[in-house]
This record gives sequence, structure tokens and C-alpha cells, in this order.
Amino acid sequence: MIKGYKKIIDDTLVKYFDEILENKNHIFARKTIESMKYTTCLGGKRLRAILCLESCKIFSGDYFPAIPSACALEMLHAQSLIHDDLPSMDNDDLRRGKPSNHKVFGEAIAVLAGDALISLGAQIIIEKTQDTIDKKRVLSAVKEYLKAAGIYGIVGGQTADIEAELRTNLRNDPDFLYYIQQYKTGALFVASCLIGGILGGADNKQLLNLEEFAKNFGIAFQMADDILDVISTTEEMGKTVGKDLFENKLTNVNKYGLEVAKQKLNSQIEKTCDILKSADIESSVFAEIINSIKKRIF
Amino acid sequence: MIKGYKKIIDDTLVKYFDEILENKNHIFARKTIESMKYTTCLGGKRLRAILCLESCKIFSGDYFPAIPSACALEMLHAQSLIHDDLPSMDNDDLRRGKPSNHKVFGEAIAVLAGDALISLGAQIIIEKTQDTIDKKRVLSAVKEYLKAAGIYGIVGGQTADIEAELRTNLRNDPDFLYYIQQYKTGALFVASCLIGGILGGADNKQLLNLEEFAKNFGIAFQMADDILDVISTTEEMGKTVGKDLFENKLTNVNKYGLEVAKQKLNSQIEKTCDILKSADIESSVFAEIINSIKKRIF
Repeated sequence: MIKGYKKIIDDTLVKYFDEILENKNHIFARKTIESMKYTTCLGGKRLRAILCLESCKIFSGDYFPAIPSACALEMLHAQSLIHDDLPSMDNDDLRRGKPSNHKVFGEAIAVLAGDALISLGAQIIIEKTQDTIDKKRVLSAVKEYLKAAGIYGIVGGQTADIEAELRTNLRNDPDFLYYIQQYKTGALFVASCLIGGILGGADNKQLLNLEEFAKNFGIAFQMADDILDVISTTEEMGKTVGKDLFENKLTNVNKYGLEVAKQKLNSQIEKTCDILKSADIESSVFAEIINSIKKRIF
Repeated sequence: MIKGYKKIIDDTLVKYFDEILENKNHIFARKTIESMKYTTCLGGKRLRAILCLESCKIFSGDYFPAIPSACALEMLHAQSLIHDDLPSMDNDDLRRGKPSNHKVFGEAIAVLAGDALISLGAQIIIEKTQDTIDKKRVLSAVKEYLKAAGIYGIVGGQTADIEAELRTNLRNDPDFLYYIQQYKTGALFVASCLIGGILGGADNKQLLNLEEFAKNFGIAFQMADDILDVISTTEEMGKTVGKDLFENKLTNVNKYGLEVAKQKLNSQIEKTCDILKSADIESSVFAEIINSIKKRIF
């Protein structure tokens, strides 16, 4: 199922960008469109899209209504990668084993491509979601997307990540690390599950359960990513590793050491599984995704 | 009226940002929120907001329903200024007579502040527009906002502006200059008038008239801005002037010389007034705004 989901998303994303590239009215903006397509279509696991499609399917039996939103979430994810890789941010030359966006298109176009991906994702949710879905639900889905994109989402998390390097007096505040783990990547997982649930017709209680799962899965994912930065290689990851220690990033590994960080990840994964159980959410896709984190670390 | 509109927008923007700053859940993201507020609340003429409020009032007799959207458009405008001023873009140290955003907050936070303003504006349209306005109209307003924010709007125009410096073989294509004039600043004026009209209940024909007016006003505004870059001083403009010539930007002034550029601007202003006349749109505010362009140049 995961492979099937991934293929649908990869193909639909190419289709969306090719539609835009074919619009002759905007040939003068072509370079930025190509830059948007480059990073969004570089591949990747499509985790956010898969969480969105599966969350929709759990409640409606069908993932189809969530395809445009799942693509939008991958655009937003690509946006955050493009801007995070900029020289003024993480200054990364490599992404998914290829030159990062600004190395190919230049910094100015990379800034613009990221900007345009934010709005394009929201446009796609509004314009491409099938008409049979109630407009109020579409509006709710867009709201979750916008929340994840901004200060209450990935921008908030990324800000805290940068601040943690500078405001060393705050580093001992446990809330600070928790905030980074929760928002830097977690906000987008929350949006992915909520949007899928909303379009699949989940009720408020079910949405709260999905949110709780996604938040905790996001924290586990970020914990694993921080560990992989230490134990993995640049080839395996397709991005530069070993930078967190060097840049004194606020992570579990830097704060507690590798072994304790692994223990904490294990507990976090258990917590995530427990949430699914007590919410009666049965999904082999969710189980497989959680397992894939385990497999990479342990 | 213009002064009244401006005060409402200035005050409401401060209120919106202070609400966010008071949210204790996001103290770790505070620096980016302050950066967003800094540029959005630096002042300026609030032209986009005024066009939006007035377009609403023309069709409903009341500007009130358009206040959140008018603020959102100023946020989007601030976003474009923050990112345009970045070293990798126009590299401008001065904006509205003050240090530009990245000079105060650093490049990384400036990138993030711009990103977050895009989604915040759309969130404000959705969440702050009064409940008496039909949700379909709110959705239409958001669509226009998102279009202006992206590749079919200011990002498209800015891309063309950058491309024109590099792709010198295209500089003689008259469509190229027209595209830049139309989208670099014009797209936001179009969104401002359309969103005001939509929230004010304008019908499709009236929206088309508003769009035609806004598009042509936008071109006139950009033409005037290019002329002011040559004939004005940095003190008067509050931003660095004289850069277009130096950077070989594709403008009427660089292409045809100052005198012809002034003639073209004059014709464009006349065209804009004619559109209002034949559409039977009577607005002392629109007239005053058009006149303010004239006064600065002639």
C-alpha cells in the first residue's frame, strides 16, 4: 500500500507541475516553476502524503479525496527543505543525494520557489479537491495547511531551532527542546493526518486522536532524525550528516548522549503505538511507518 | 477617507500581531513574530489595503467586512518587501527609511518571517472575516490572495524581473516588460480590488471591471516607481534609489529614456481613468490615489 500511495503522489505532483509549465502566459516565470518542481519531485519517502491518504481512508474507506491535499503537503515540505538549505539557514549543498535547490537555481530563485510553493499548496487543496467534498471541510483542510506552514507550525519550529544555537541560557529549559521536536517537523505530520481525517469525514473526537498520534509520531521522527545525523552516513541519508554536533544544535543526542537518546526514542515509539491502540485506530500503513523508524535506528 | 482607512489598517495590524505575541505557547518563535511585525507595521501608504476597503464599500456601502483581508494584503506586501530586500535578491539595506528586515533580524529570520506572513495573511482572511459573509465568498477571497502570492502573481513578476537582468536576448520582447509591470506589483493591486469586491458582493461583470482597473493602475504604479527611482532621492523614497540603471533592470526608463517613460505613464494614467468612467465606478478614493501618482511625477 505504501508503495502504491507513493507512486500516486509522485505521478500527480509531476502532472500538477507540468500543467503549470504548459501555461504559456507565464513563460517569463518558468525558472521558478522549474525550481519548485525540482525539489518537490526529487523523490523522498512521501511520508506526509502517505499519512494524509491513509488518514482519509481510515474514516471513509477511500484515499482518493485526499490526493490533492497530500500533494500540497509534499509541496509545503519541499518549501521548508528549500529554505532550510539556504546559505543563511542550514547552508546545505546536498538534498536527497542531489545538489540542493539554490545550488542549481541560485539563491534568489530558491527563495522565490519556496514562497510560491506555500501558496500553490493551498491553491491546490481549494481548487483540486473534488466537488463532492463539502466546502466547509475544504476550508478546514486549508486552515490546517496554513497553520502548519506558519508561525504556529514549521516556521515556529525552525525559529526555535535557530534560536537554540544562540540563546544558550535557554538550552536547559526542557520545553525548548520539546517545542523544536514538536514543531520543526511534527507540525506537518499533524496537518497531514488532520487534513486526511477532515476530508475522510472524521468527527471531532477522531480528529483529536489523529492529532495526538501525529504529534507523538512527529516527535519520534525528529528524535530518530537527530540520531541518524550521528550514526548514519551522508550517502545513506542523501544529505550532509554530522552537522548537529558541530553546530551545537539542541537535540536529545547533544543533550543526553547517544544511548539515552535511543532509549528516549524507544519510549516515544511505544507511546505512539499506545495512542493508536487506545484510539482503536487500526492501520497497517501507520504500523509500517512506525516500524520503519525503528528499523533504521535499532 | 484615505487617512481614516490608513489608521484603521495600522491599528488593526498592530492588534493582530500583539495577539500572536501574547500567545505564551509560542515564546520560542517570538523573534520571527517580531520580525513579521517590524516590517508590516513600518507604515507605508497602505495602498493595497485602501483599494481593498474601498472596493468593498463601492458595492456594499460598507468597508468593514474587508478589514481582515485588507490587513492580510498588507502582510503579503510586507512579505514581498522582506524577501526582495534580501542580499540574494535586491540586497537593500533600507526600507521606509529604516534598516531593512534582515539588517535588524538577520537573514535566516527574515526568510522565515516572509514565509510565515504568506500563510498568516490567508489564515486571517479565513478566521477573521465576519461570520455574516458567506463561506463561498471567503473561499473566493482566499483564492485571489493565494494567486497573488505565487507564481501567477508577485513571485512570477519578481522572477521575470530577475530573469530580465540575465536573459538579455529577451529584453527586446515587449511582452517581457509588460509582464514585469503587470505582475511585480500589479498582481497585488488586482487581488486587493477583487477581494474587496468579492466581500462587498460585486457580481462577475463588476469584478471584471475592478480587475481591469486594478491591472492598469498597477502598471501605472510600477511605471511611476521606475521613474521615481531616477528622479527622486533616497530620503524622499525611504529606500535606495538609482539602482535600476546600475543593475540594468528592464524598465521603461532604461528602455526608452526618461521623457518617453513619462509620456507612457501619462497615457497609462489616462487609460486607468477611462476604465473607471466606462465601468461607472465613481470613487473619490480611487481618484485621489490615481492623482497621488501624477503629483509625484509631474
